[in-house]
Amino acid sequence: MSFNSPQPATADIGVYGMGVMGSNLARNLARNGYRTAVGNRSVERTADFMGKHGEEAVFVPSHNMAEFISSLEPPRVGIIMVQAGAATDAVMESMAEHMEAGDIIVDCGNSLFSDTVRREAWCSARGLHFVGAGVSGGEEGALWGPSIMPGGTPESYDRLGPMFEAISAKVDGEPCCTHVGTDGAGHFVKMVHNGIEYADMQVIAEAYDLLKQRLGLSAGEIAEIFAAWNETELGSYLIEITAEVLRQVDAETGTPLVDLIVDRASQKGTGKWTVQNALDLAVPVTAIAEATMARGASSATEQRQAARTFAGHTANDEITNKEAFIEDVRQALYASKIVAYSQGFDQITEAAKTYGWDINRANVARIWRGGCIIRAVFLGDITEAYERNSELPLLMADENFAAKIDAAVPAWRRVVADAVLHGVPTPVFSSSLVYFDMLRAKRLPAALIQGQRDFFGAHTYQRTDKEGTFHTFWAEPGRPEEEA
Amino acid sequence: MSFNSPQPATADIGVYGMGVMGSNLARNLARNGYRTAVGNRSVERTADFMGKHGEEAVFVPSHNMAEFISSLEPPRVGIIMVQAGAATDAVMESMAEHMEAGDIIVDCGNSLFSDTVRREAWCSARGLHFVGAGVSGGEEGALWGPSIMPGGTPESYDRLGPMFEAISAKVDGEPCCTHVGTDGAGHFVKMVHNGIEYADMQVIAEAYDLLKQRLGLSAGEIAEIFAAWNETELGSYLIEITAEVLRQVDAETGTPLVDLIVDRASQKGTGKWTVQNALDLAVPVTAIAEATMARGASSATEQRQAARTFAGHTANDEITNKEAFIEDVRQALYASKIVAYSQGFDQITEAAKTYGWDINRANVARIWRGGCIIRAVFLGDITEAYERNSELPLLMADENFAAKIDAAVPAWRRVVADAVLHGVPTPVFSSSLVYFDMLRAKRLPAALIQGQRDFFGAHTYQRTDKEGTFHTFWAEPGRPEEEA
Repeated sequence: MSFNSPQPATADIGVYGMGVMGSNLARNLARNGYRTAVGNRSVERTADFMGKHGEEAVFVPSHNMAEFISSLEPPRVGIIMVQAGAATDAVMESMAEHMEAGDIIVDCGNSLFSDTVRREAWCSARGLHFVGAGVSGGEEGALWGPSIMPGGTPESYDRLGPMFEAISAKVDGEPCCTHVGTDGAGHFVKMVHNGIEYADMQVIAEAYDLLKQRLGLSAGEIAEIFAAWNETELGSYLIEITAEVLRQVDAETGTPLVDLIVDRASQKGTGKWTVQNALDLAVPVTAIAEATMARGASSATEQRQAARTFAGHTANDEITNKEAFIEDVRQALYASKIVAYSQGFDQITEAAKTYGWDINRANVARIWRGGCIIRAVFLGDITEAYERNSELPLLMADENFAAKIDAAVPAWRRVVADAVLHGVPTPVFSSSLVYFDMLRAKRLPAALIQGQRDFFGAHTYQRTDKEGTFHTFWAEPGRPEEEA
Repeated sequence: MSFNSPQPATADIGVYGMGVMGSNLARNLARNGYRTAVGNRSVERTADFMGKHGEEAVFVPSHNMAEFISSLEPPRVGIIMVQAGAATDAVMESMAEHMEAGDIIVDCGNSLFSDTVRREAWCSARGLHFVGAGVSGGEEGALWGPSIMPGGTPESYDRLGPMFEAISAKVDGEPCCTHVGTDGAGHFVKMVHNGIEYADMQVIAEAYDLLKQRLGLSAGEIAEIFAAWNETELGSYLIEITAEVLRQVDAETGTPLVDLIVDRASQKGTGKWTVQNALDLAVPVTAIAEATMARGASSATEQRQAARTFAGHTANDEITNKEAFIEDVRQALYASKIVAYSQGFDQITEAAKTYGWDINRANVARIWRGGCIIRAVFLGDITEAYERNSELPLLMADENFAAKIDAAVPAWRRVVADAVLHGVPTPVFSSSLVYFDMLRAKRLPAALIQGQRDFFGAHTYQRTDKEGTFHTFWAEPGRPEEEA
């Protein structure tokens, strides 16, 4: 189909990029009463969109960027929904060319937050606003209500916020959208969301593997356990769909589908970004790191082949009290999950300090309660924790979570020790428990590491009993250290 | 003191940057018979160097870059030994300005390999050679014989290699220097060396912590255990200095010094770089990641403070057979160490493929046998493993290491399970064992993760029983999947 060129200033907002995500975002906006401009580099896609959805609500199609921008009511709001990277830069530059001071460019793609910081500065120098907005929830979320994490200036949020809040998911009547912070804060928080998602999926996978290997349960039986867990404090989208995935039976063979899927997990890069940034900030996000690397290990086909010949020397006793073991695994999953989120919020906290963002952590948890992949009852508890204490130094030490961890620790230790002895690999269960023990340790052997570093590299150390920085002449025992 | 301007072409090689590392490298070169030009941005440092060391051998001091370069015999070899980053770029550009086609700039600083790749291209476009050379061994190593890891062109190695081999450490008469590969390969391998060093130090720290906490041994008693271990297959510089560090008694208080050192481990960034790059390459270097993050956790003062109130719910039984436990810990240390090195060599292997380097892994292990921080008997075993099979897909699956791991696994499992139950945090012991179990697993729960990803993001999956890429309409049970 073809369409006429738009009348100027007849749209409230526009979406450029008519892929599935862009189309769905546009349909969501229009369904909520906003006259929505639509555009795309190849006009056929816009025509195609109009053919399929043009009658749903008020859309304003355009043949090119000039038309697209002129169809927007000032101050103009143009959403970019194209591939992250060079494509986003190209569309931004083209939009900026046709815009006027005060207009707003919004990037809803999966951009790296540091690119967003750079783009914000570029637009700001031209008198334009640039908003990097993380959008989570996939295609369905984009259409029916995603979790939206916009950054950028407060002024841009005045104009954009009400529209985004209208189209976002709602939990208890509250929108899953808030102004996260300036420049790249929105995309940053979206990145950490995805990192946490990696850990969340991995702990579920570990629980499944333990139930399968230690109890010999079938996929269908484990599906029912996850369905039951979904009614507990673990209730979440990921637990819910895990039950669905495990229930799926291959029509052709009658086998549970999960048993036919190749056990190599892929990744699209946001878990990696999260860990790389955490390393820059020196925040130990061991759960996200282990989850990301577990995907890497699963895909290391050559190495796995080479390791097939190892004798595992695993214990072979069977679990006697199956119900107790299932509950232990549930507790271990829950405790590990608290650690993963606690580490993720530590990363957000440190990033806010480092990059100069004023991030309200309660609000971040609040807008993750719905719309996004990690949506869960749990996020309500995190919201409450930060509402109780906005300066909380460690999420897992919040009174509610601390009590839950305290209750879970015995089971957590039993499960990890059992996994270790029986050779069931539980990277996140294990490393999260180790992290818990590191944080609560009165003394860590890091003191020895500082001694080694001073020995071979004169890196100096500090003392517990006096102020200052010290270096020891290690080769001469008994010789007093000097202040460095 | 002051000095005369140099005669042209009277030096075989030059070192620019008269910090401790540069001075020691220059003294090492001169002691080995090379007429060594010396220069520095502030001429006072050069004068100071000449005052202290000018009589040791033949040095050719210069007042500025023009003099420094003209004092070199063509094809000129100028070593940069300044801070990594902007300072290195500045010196390189200044050197290049005074050089002629065919001359060689060598960066012996701790540069990030990607900077080296960029600099090599910059110099190459000007007809110059640029060699990024990793140098390990600290100040003492630089003076008496470091491990040297040069990259760059083979032609540049023809000129430079003999000099570097002469000043490098020797093991069994073989120099600890080889042409690692082109452009950034040398600095890359040095980076991974440092990452492995993090893991190596951490496993030693974990062994120390277990002996201290589970057996209640003093620093002095543990020193003797490490001294004894140094006579086994664990024999290495790091084990040796660990005994020294643990033996050190504070003269003032009579307390073992290690017990007075603040237990927060610092880092200078190469461990971080290694893990960040491994994530780019999707190589799971869990040992290096956990070691790096353990330093971060030790330095997370606020979080550690907040975690003090946790009940650990740790088991409180004592070890009955102390000797057996000590040997178990030694085995666990050794097995974890094999994993760390195996992962590091995986990273080098993957990097060589990705960045187009022809790296001889046996030679990398060979030049790490002496001069550097991780020097050890162990590196001889790695050399032999890659000599036996230059295509070895997994270092730990080499027949020698596989046998040693096989022998160590029961002890390894016992130690990690004990640590888990007693709350002694062993991040690298634990994660290395988990990694071992991941690699040898016949089926990993990554299949479930692929199912989840296809459910919420239509990311597709592969099947074990037929070729192709598949997507399931999860919401409609029983509906056949489609080929995506």
